[in-house]
Amino acid sequence: MGNLLAVDAGGTSTRAVVLTATGECLGYGKAGSGNPISSGTEHAAREVVAAARSALAQASVSAIDDTAVLAMAGSRTYVSTDWITAALNAVDVRGRVVLESDLLATFCSGAWEPDGYAVVAGTGAAAIRVRGGQQDLSADGLGWLLGDDGSGFWLGQQVVRSVAAQLDGRGPRTSLTPLLLGVLNVPADASNTPGYDGRPESLRLLLDAVYALRPIELARFAPLVFRAGDDEVASRIVTDARAALHTTLAAIDTAAVRGPVVCGGGVLGALGLPVEGLSGVTEVRSVPDGAVGAAVLALRHNGVTVGRDVFERVRETLESLRG
Amino acid sequence: MGNLLAVDAGGTSTRAVVLTATGECLGYGKAGSGNPISSGTEHAAREVVAAARSALAQASVSAIDDTAVLAMAGSRTYVSTDWITAALNAVDVRGRVVLESDLLATFCSGAWEPDGYAVVAGTGAAAIRVRGGQQDLSADGLGWLLGDDGSGFWLGQQVVRSVAAQLDGRGPRTSLTPLLLGVLNVPADASNTPGYDGRPESLRLLLDAVYALRPIELARFAPLVFRAGDDEVASRIVTDARAALHTTLAAIDTAAVRGPVVCGGGVLGALGLPVEGLSGVTEVRSVPDGAVGAAVLALRHNGVTVGRDVFERVRETLESLRG
Repeated sequence: MGNLLAVDAGGTSTRAVVLTATGECLGYGKAGSGNPISSGTEHAAREVVAAARSALAQASVSAIDDTAVLAMAGSRTYVSTDWITAALNAVDVRGRVVLESDLLATFCSGAWEPDGYAVVAGTGAAAIRVRGGQQDLSADGLGWLLGDDGSGFWLGQQVVRSVAAQLDGRGPRTSLTPLLLGVLNVPADASNTPGYDGRPESLRLLLDAVYALRPIELARFAPLVFRAGDDEVASRIVTDARAALHTTLAAIDTAAVRGPVVCGGGVLGALGLPVEGLSGVTEVRSVPDGAVGAAVLALRHNGVTVGRDVFERVRETLESLRG
Repeated sequence: MGNLLAVDAGGTSTRAVVLTATGECLGYGKAGSGNPISSGTEHAAREVVAAARSALAQASVSAIDDTAVLAMAGSRTYVSTDWITAALNAVDVRGRVVLESDLLATFCSGAWEPDGYAVVAGTGAAAIRVRGGQQDLSADGLGWLLGDDGSGFWLGQQVVRSVAAQLDGRGPRTSLTPLLLGVLNVPADASNTPGYDGRPESLRLLLDAVYALRPIELARFAPLVFRAGDDEVASRIVTDARAALHTTLAAIDTAAVRGPVVCGGGVLGALGLPVEGLSGVTEVRSVPDGAVGAAVLALRHNGVTVGRDVFERVRETLESLRG
């Protein structure tokens, strides 16, 4: 077997790894959004190829003949790989491309064990149970309109609704208000200026700014809850988000599947995951992304058994490549 | 002064009234959505004209020369009347067209008094305070993403999220589930069929059906909460919606403005409005729509003082026309 390619294609950025069959990472590359659902197949293919090209160059590897793994959200529903195989062929990645779940890649980034759990909260939020190395059951990940409780979108919408309620006289004063109005470049004195209907001008400017966004973009306001200091409204939002993510994990938790829970996604990193009262979770680990896991999955798809030693080799050699 | 025209243009249907300067309604007509914001100006103009034409025909009135009133949501921001004046000229409505707030028309449909409040919960939800016959202050009406607490959208989204949570194992069993799946034509046995990721097939079908809608269309699921019988989840949604509408009214309630609160909109009619703890609200009245109020506003715009007698004449003669 020759060298292998693994790609962790996210909605914000894409990471590619070239590694040996023994788990030694030789090259690493990064590019923009490689998710075909959120960015379109053409854009996603271009970014995946850009990341792969960087990784191949750093590894001084000219061709990949074995099965490549592409971990991405929606891998279960987006079954076609035509959009990416032709593009990768052009940079001499000639083997089959297998799609894998981004949540499974998150799990495998933090655990070599066959059983356990992963919870990811970034723009969206979801959890999986892993049994025998396979994704066994999912929870949430239902999108911003129907679910994604405790996600970046969820937090961002709570922020915006809380600020709107304050300016509207329906909700308590919160330090989220100056933070959000600042981010949206609403002049500070607009809250003291009456608008056309007796409400503050800042409320009208807030509505105009927010309705100009796609709903999912409200996720960009999530980090404000961590900058609000000792604020009751922000604290309640954070508490509710943590409880929601606990509920999501609890829905798939069982004593029959014992193992670590691997946490991923920027929002979960900031929130922290409460794990009291769960029967299958043995410990909590955190990973920055799914790159190590994509590499582990590439090894497994090419018949390599990944135990603790190989896992640690992947993790350590990738860490030193990333500097 | 000749005969007058008043139109109550809603997002679902439009009502037109032809009346004398003494408040006697002579003709009534109905058509589809006449709101230019939700339906576009061309469609809205066509429906307003259709309703006006029916009202003129029933009244055997061939022309209107005095100021016509068009009550609609967004009247404060949608200041141009060009889209409708030319269209109405074609059916010999030759006077000026004045836009008025749909909420003020709701208030004037239930109150001849100069001071009071109106609360409307249909697809959206908002409240106004009226002082000296003018809209004095508003609350909510901020749209489905930022506000409209307790509205039809708000209820419908709670229904859909609650059902998704049950099917996902994250939420309690609720009788909303069979009701919603029935409305969406999801086969009853789909909840016992495992889908591609271990979750019930009905969850996938629910997601497909709901994400095919525009978000605002979730309002169509609101009535399910009133058909759920003795169900804890549905009861909590109803309780929360009533509390939210109370909060919206409380935000503008003041002892300095004493008068009736007029309730409008299908959702509020079903929920009922709690009014405990308010200092300006003297009594609660309900109206089916803003047609009477639009007629009252047309009289006032043409210099007619509308007291209890004229108001009752408008109300009674319109009621007999509507049959």
